[in-house]
Amino acid sequence: MKLVRTLKELREARASLAEPVGLVPTMGYLHEGHLSLVQAAHRSCASVVVSIFVNPTQFGPQEDLARYPRDLQHDLDLLEKENVDIVWAPEDGEMYPPDYQTWVSVENVTRPLEGELRPGHFRGVTTVVSKLFNTVQPQKAFFGQKDAQQAQVILRMVADLNFPIDIQICPIIREADGLAMSSRNTYLSPAERQAAPILNRALLSARSLYENGERNAAVIKNSLQDIFKEEPLARPQYIAVVDPATFEEIGIIQDKALILLAVYFGKTRLIDNLILSGK
Amino acid sequence: MKLVRTLKELREARASLAEPVGLVPTMGYLHEGHLSLVQAAHRSCASVVVSIFVNPTQFGPQEDLARYPRDLQHDLDLLEKENVDIVWAPEDGEMYPPDYQTWVSVENVTRPLEGELRPGHFRGVTTVVSKLFNTVQPQKAFFGQKDAQQAQVILRMVADLNFPIDIQICPIIREADGLAMSSRNTYLSPAERQAAPILNRALLSARSLYENGERNAAVIKNSLQDIFKEEPLARPQYIAVVDPATFEEIGIIQDKALILLAVYFGKTRLIDNLILSGK
Repeated sequence: MKLVRTLKELREARASLAEPVGLVPTMGYLHEGHLSLVQAAHRSCASVVVSIFVNPTQFGPQEDLARYPRDLQHDLDLLEKENVDIVWAPEDGEMYPPDYQTWVSVENVTRPLEGELRPGHFRGVTTVVSKLFNTVQPQKAFFGQKDAQQAQVILRMVADLNFPIDIQICPIIREADGLAMSSRNTYLSPAERQAAPILNRALLSARSLYENGERNAAVIKNSLQDIFKEEPLARPQYIAVVDPATFEEIGIIQDKALILLAVYFGKTRLIDNLILSGK
Repeated sequence: MKLVRTLKELREARASLAEPVGLVPTMGYLHEGHLSLVQAAHRSCASVVVSIFVNPTQFGPQEDLARYPRDLQHDLDLLEKENVDIVWAPEDGEMYPPDYQTWVSVENVTRPLEGELRPGHFRGVTTVVSKLFNTVQPQKAFFGQKDAQQAQVILRMVADLNFPIDIQICPIIREADGLAMSSRNTYLSPAERQAAPILNRALLSARSLYENGERNAAVIKNSLQDIFKEEPLARPQYIAVVDPATFEEIGIIQDKALILLAVYFGKTRLIDNLILSGK
C-alpha cells in the first residue's frame, strides 16, 4: 500500500496500477461503512484507491470542519488490512491553491433538504469529487447510500458531465443496534449514543406502515414525528418522503419512495434513510 | 475519417484510436484558423479528434445561436483533407438531455470583458468543454489565441479541476489583409469586410507605441480610440489592456500585457487581441 500526498506522487503511483481501478472517496476517520465500499471495489476492480481528504469547501462557516474527527494512522492501518493499493491523502493546498476559482454545481437535485440546510455543501462535494475523478482516473467509484442525496447528486453529475466512470452506490452499514455508521457518531455522548438507534427504528416502522398498505406520505411522516416525540434527546430537523431520483417531495407514493431523516442529538446531526419499494 | 453523432458511437470509435489523442473543439463553419489547430494536433498527437457542436448554452438569449453559420458537409470535406481520425458532431439532445442540470463555472477570470458583456457565456463554454474532455478523453486539446479570454478560462479550469490534459493555445491566423479569421466574418457586408482589418492595424499601432517605450495603458487605449474614430463603420465596444493570466486591467505595463478589442460592424461583433511582451 502506497500513501501519496502530492499530485506528482499520485500520477506516478496511478500509472502503474492494474485496471480497472476503483476509487473510494472518503473524509477519513474510517469505519465499517467505508471498509464495505473498499470491499465492494475489490470485488469488481483490479486495483483500489482510497482518497482521504476532509474537503473544506463542503463545510459551511458554522459547520464542524475544524473539529471533524481525523486519525490518519488508524485509517492507514485499516486500509493496509484491506489490501488497498493507493491512499491518496492530499494537503488542502494541493487541492485548493490560493488562486483556485472553479466550481462544479448540480442544480435541481441539490436544492431541497441537505442542499437547503447546508448552502454550498453540494457544490463543494461535486467540485472535490470531480477533482478526485480527474486526478485518480478510476473506471469505477464507490459511494454509500447513507448520504442518499449526495449519491444521487454524484450520479446526476457523472451522467451530465459524461465522466467515463461507473458509479456504484453501496448499502448502509449499521451497528448491531441499528445505528447507521458515521464518523460523526463519535460526537455523541453515551446517553445520546444510546438514544440514536431511534432513527433506524423509526425507518423500520415506516416500512411496516408501507408494507401494510399505507401510501400517504403525510400519514407516514406524522407517525415518524410521534415516534421521535418519545425520545427527549432527539430533535428531528427534517422527515421527508421523496422521489429517489429527483428528490422532489411525494404526496402519495406510487412506486418507489425514499424516506430521509435528519435528527439532532445535542449539537450532533445524524442522517439516515430507507428506500420504500413495492419490489 | 469517421463521423460520429452519438455518445455510443464515439466511445466505440475512441477505443481504437492510437494515443496520444489530440482534441480540437470547434463550433464548425471551419476556416484556416481551425485547420491550424488540427495541424498543430497532428504534430504532437498520434490521433486527432475534431468536435463540431454549436453549443447552445454559451449563447445568450439575444445572441446569434439560430443564425450562427453551419455547413457540416463543407467542414467534413476540409477535415477529410487534414486526415482527421474522428469528427464528433453530437446532436443537442445528446449533449443536453431534458433533465440536464450540471454546470462548470470559473470565477475571477470570467468576470470582466466577454464575461461581463455575455452573462453565462463562459459557464456554457467551460461546461461543454468539460463534457467534450470527458467524452473524448484526449491527452491534449488545442484552442486558439483568437478567443484570448476563453483560452485563459480553459487553462484555469483544467488546472483547477485537475483535468489530465495538456492544453495548447495556438496563434491567431489572419487573412492576407490582417483580419483575424472567424466564422462570424461571414456576417460582414462587403463594405464592413473592407473596413474590418482596422482591428489588426490598431493592434499593430499599439505594439509600435509599446516598442517605442510607452507603458501607460491609458495612453495606448486613447490612441486606439483615435484610430477607430477614423472608421465610421467601426464601433468599439471595449478596448482593454489586461494582465494576460488574470484579465485584471493594467494601469502601467510592467512585464507582459494583453490588448483586447471588441468592435461592432453593424450587428456583427468582432474580437481580436495582441500580447505585448518585453521578450
